[in-house]
Amino acid sequence: MPLDNPKSDFSKWYSEILLRGDIVDARTPIKGANVILPNGYTIWESIKRFLDQQFEATDHKNAYFPLFIPEEFLLRESEHFEGFVPEVAWVTRVGDRELNQKLALRPTSETIMYHMYAQWIKDHSDLPIKYNQWANIIRMDTKETRPLLRDREFQWSEAHTCHAKPEEAVEQVKESMLIYQALFDALGLSYLVVRRPKFDTFPGADYSIAYDAPLTDGRVLQIGTTHNLGQSFAKVFHIKYTDKDGKSQLVYQTCYGVSTRVLAAIIALHGDDQGLILPPKFAPIQIGLVPIFFKEDSDLVKTAIEDLTKELKKAGYKAKADIRESYTAGWKFAEFEMKGVPIRLEIGPRDLKNDSVMLVRRDTGEKQSVKRSDVKKVIKKVMIDIAQNLKMKADDILQQMLHQIDDFEALKKLMSTTRGIAISNWCGEDECAENIKEETSADIRGVREDIEEKPTGPCIVCLEEGKFRVYIAQAY
Amino acid sequence: MPLDNPKSDFSKWYSEILLRGDIVDARTPIKGANVILPNGYTIWESIKRFLDQQFEATDHKNAYFPLFIPEEFLLRESEHFEGFVPEVAWVTRVGDRELNQKLALRPTSETIMYHMYAQWIKDHSDLPIKYNQWANIIRMDTKETRPLLRDREFQWSEAHTCHAKPEEAVEQVKESMLIYQALFDALGLSYLVVRRPKFDTFPGADYSIAYDAPLTDGRVLQIGTTHNLGQSFAKVFHIKYTDKDGKSQLVYQTCYGVSTRVLAAIIALHGDDQGLILPPKFAPIQIGLVPIFFKEDSDLVKTAIEDLTKELKKAGYKAKADIRESYTAGWKFAEFEMKGVPIRLEIGPRDLKNDSVMLVRRDTGEKQSVKRSDVKKVIKKVMIDIAQNLKMKADDILQQMLHQIDDFEALKKLMSTTRGIAISNWCGEDECAENIKEETSADIRGVREDIEEKPTGPCIVCLEEGKFRVYIAQAY
Repeated sequence: MPLDNPKSDFSKWYSEILLRGDIVDARTPIKGANVILPNGYTIWESIKRFLDQQFEATDHKNAYFPLFIPEEFLLRESEHFEGFVPEVAWVTRVGDRELNQKLALRPTSETIMYHMYAQWIKDHSDLPIKYNQWANIIRMDTKETRPLLRDREFQWSEAHTCHAKPEEAVEQVKESMLIYQALFDALGLSYLVVRRPKFDTFPGADYSIAYDAPLTDGRVLQIGTTHNLGQSFAKVFHIKYTDKDGKSQLVYQTCYGVSTRVLAAIIALHGDDQGLILPPKFAPIQIGLVPIFFKEDSDLVKTAIEDLTKELKKAGYKAKADIRESYTAGWKFAEFEMKGVPIRLEIGPRDLKNDSVMLVRRDTGEKQSVKRSDVKKVIKKVMIDIAQNLKMKADDILQQMLHQIDDFEALKKLMSTTRGIAISNWCGEDECAENIKEETSADIRGVREDIEEKPTGPCIVCLEEGKFRVYIAQAY
Repeated sequence: MPLDNPKSDFSKWYSEILLRGDIVDARTPIKGANVILPNGYTIWESIKRFLDQQFEATDHKNAYFPLFIPEEFLLRESEHFEGFVPEVAWVTRVGDRELNQKLALRPTSETIMYHMYAQWIKDHSDLPIKYNQWANIIRMDTKETRPLLRDREFQWSEAHTCHAKPEEAVEQVKESMLIYQALFDALGLSYLVVRRPKFDTFPGADYSIAYDAPLTDGRVLQIGTTHNLGQSFAKVFHIKYTDKDGKSQLVYQTCYGVSTRVLAAIIALHGDDQGLILPPKFAPIQIGLVPIFFKEDSDLVKTAIEDLTKELKKAGYKAKADIRESYTAGWKFAEFEMKGVPIRLEIGPRDLKNDSVMLVRRDTGEKQSVKRSDVKKVIKKVMIDIAQNLKMKADDILQQMLHQIDDFEALKKLMSTTRGIAISNWCGEDECAENIKEETSADIRGVREDIEEKPTGPCIVCLEEGKFRVYIAQAY
């Protein structure tokens, strides 16, 4: 049974594909804390591997910090963390004993990490330091939860760096942008890199860069952020180093993170009514093999499939054959399609006779008969094609969502119909941003960070001088 | 500055090596919840990779289940979990709101996983199922905490399986034993595989197998467990399948886990007064390269070191050169030694002239001059030698700790002096086990599971008929 069409009912399609695509099971007894199923978990593990390689190449180190954060730490930086407080889960009891000081479960790890950094950093030779942590994060959002989009427990990577000079922190922000863009490009995602407006900057940060991916329902999803923290946390957590002249100096800091939200973007941007479509590099199964059984040739077909599977595995591909005789070939096709397997290979008696293999692309559905001896060569090429095609289609989705809008009424109409991303001018006043939010449920997401853009006219709301060319969209 | 001798003051040595070997920093504000530092974290990641390969080869799937467990689940299986209750951390508040039902942080994941299994399993074709989870675990032990040995938050792998037939569960227990033994052997650990006595069986399990590693202070450390759960959890969580005759049947279950405790065993069994000694396969840095600078040849030496490092990396080795001129070669030697780097390569002007490289083994300290063109060949061999030597030395430690003891007074003496592992006979009565515990602080760890052993005389305590040949030791 096919799924709903993602374009006609995104919400229903998304809920269904999570379970049938083996990504998430939300039927847990705890709202917003779900099971990440094998297909979803394995994609996340490949994302982890990809980022770990990037981190290693740029001298980041992996470490693990405690889940618990003492209340006193959050109080100390309450100015920064006001926004998190309503979402913090508190451990107040152990067994039947009340704790003297209650413990927060990390909604993010600045406080506990920077407490350690203050102990680790002595002098300039200890800088820069760049640590990354893979961890579960707890944010007991009171709004409606949605798997991967808005979870109360989710997985993420958070990197936190310290530098001697402010310009090094600026460079570090750029390095993180390169790392994340490499990841998102490899995943075939489209996205905008924007600098958030002041009112939407991470509390305590000088400025925040965010990566917004378009979803097919016309909304956007923040799939990553980078913050230049300046010295504000360094002041609160006393992170100091002795410079070459023997003087004590505060460090400059950055932090950046991506979470399992990236999985939601992969699902939503690439999927169709047959299920998931996964980028080959990150697919838990890259090649699904299906024998087409006919009575007389069953054994030969089975052997041919098993030989090919072995050969592909040896060549480093994640190949899986489904040789069960109790399921039809059609059922197996649908199953591999639902799970997003990029390439399907079929062998039947006719293929055997012709010494060929039928190759089917998940993204386009195209079929081609491939000479047995060419299979590996063709797969290599098709995988590159699929990755490029996914990226191109995702870029198209983004392009189609972008609308140059200079009139507030037109913006209201857009956001109440197809939705999308409006490119408009803004005076920079919070009042106008609030006005937009109230009237359209959309947010000013920010100005482009990857390219320079100048305002082209007056503010879309108040018609005063436009100071920023901004991107406006409804967000998850 | 060298460490203390591990044999003269294990406790002091262990605390020191954790920080200086870049394994754990326990200077956090939360007792028993520590920072796993890069060297420690990276070893844990290689253990994860090793087990994931084993799991994949044996059709286990990785998934992730929620950290939170509803109170009702723990109450439902209170019979099994009585032992955990005093250690459970409870989330009772979110922001400033009290929760209606408090949430436990997983002390282990049977309840939440089996609740999902009951929804997933319909008929016999769904069996067996074998899921593994990598997760952080919370046990607020009230006893003295010790990094990696007894933590309130730690990392682990827990696998949970369901089967149609009891004999399949028995086979699964054996499969898990093979997997864990492969891991421990690869890590060069020595260990006993024992079946725990009834009074020390995991609550709810038919029987428990445990892996006890010797530590150099004469105690043992449980580094893994496997439980045959029978049907007791299946009954409580209603995990049923429809068999081939259409009848509803309860599944049979097993579960098994290893945690970051394994890191403690690696440190304690292999380390010496110069620091860690890591098995090559799992070492974050396998080869440390140090240039021996002399004024006139500095550039040549540096280039030679960099070329060799590149070559080794290309060959797949984790190689790291320390070419900083502000540190002495001696300082760098000590640093690589402290972190357990298995092989050190040095190049100085004389080596350059002879077209050779000096190779130093971390485990034996042996030095040999190697022809430049033979380096990779020799490294390959030396790594195998080091792995074998570590395993041999660890086996020696275990052998030296084993004592055939048939007299209670002799047992008391052993446990109050050098400690060790006594092999004795036991009648099977709890009273005698309690007597041993009281008089010697040692536990009956169980009977050997990997080999068959029969009692050789009367019970060491009551002198009644000996029914079990048991291993007795003080444990962490």
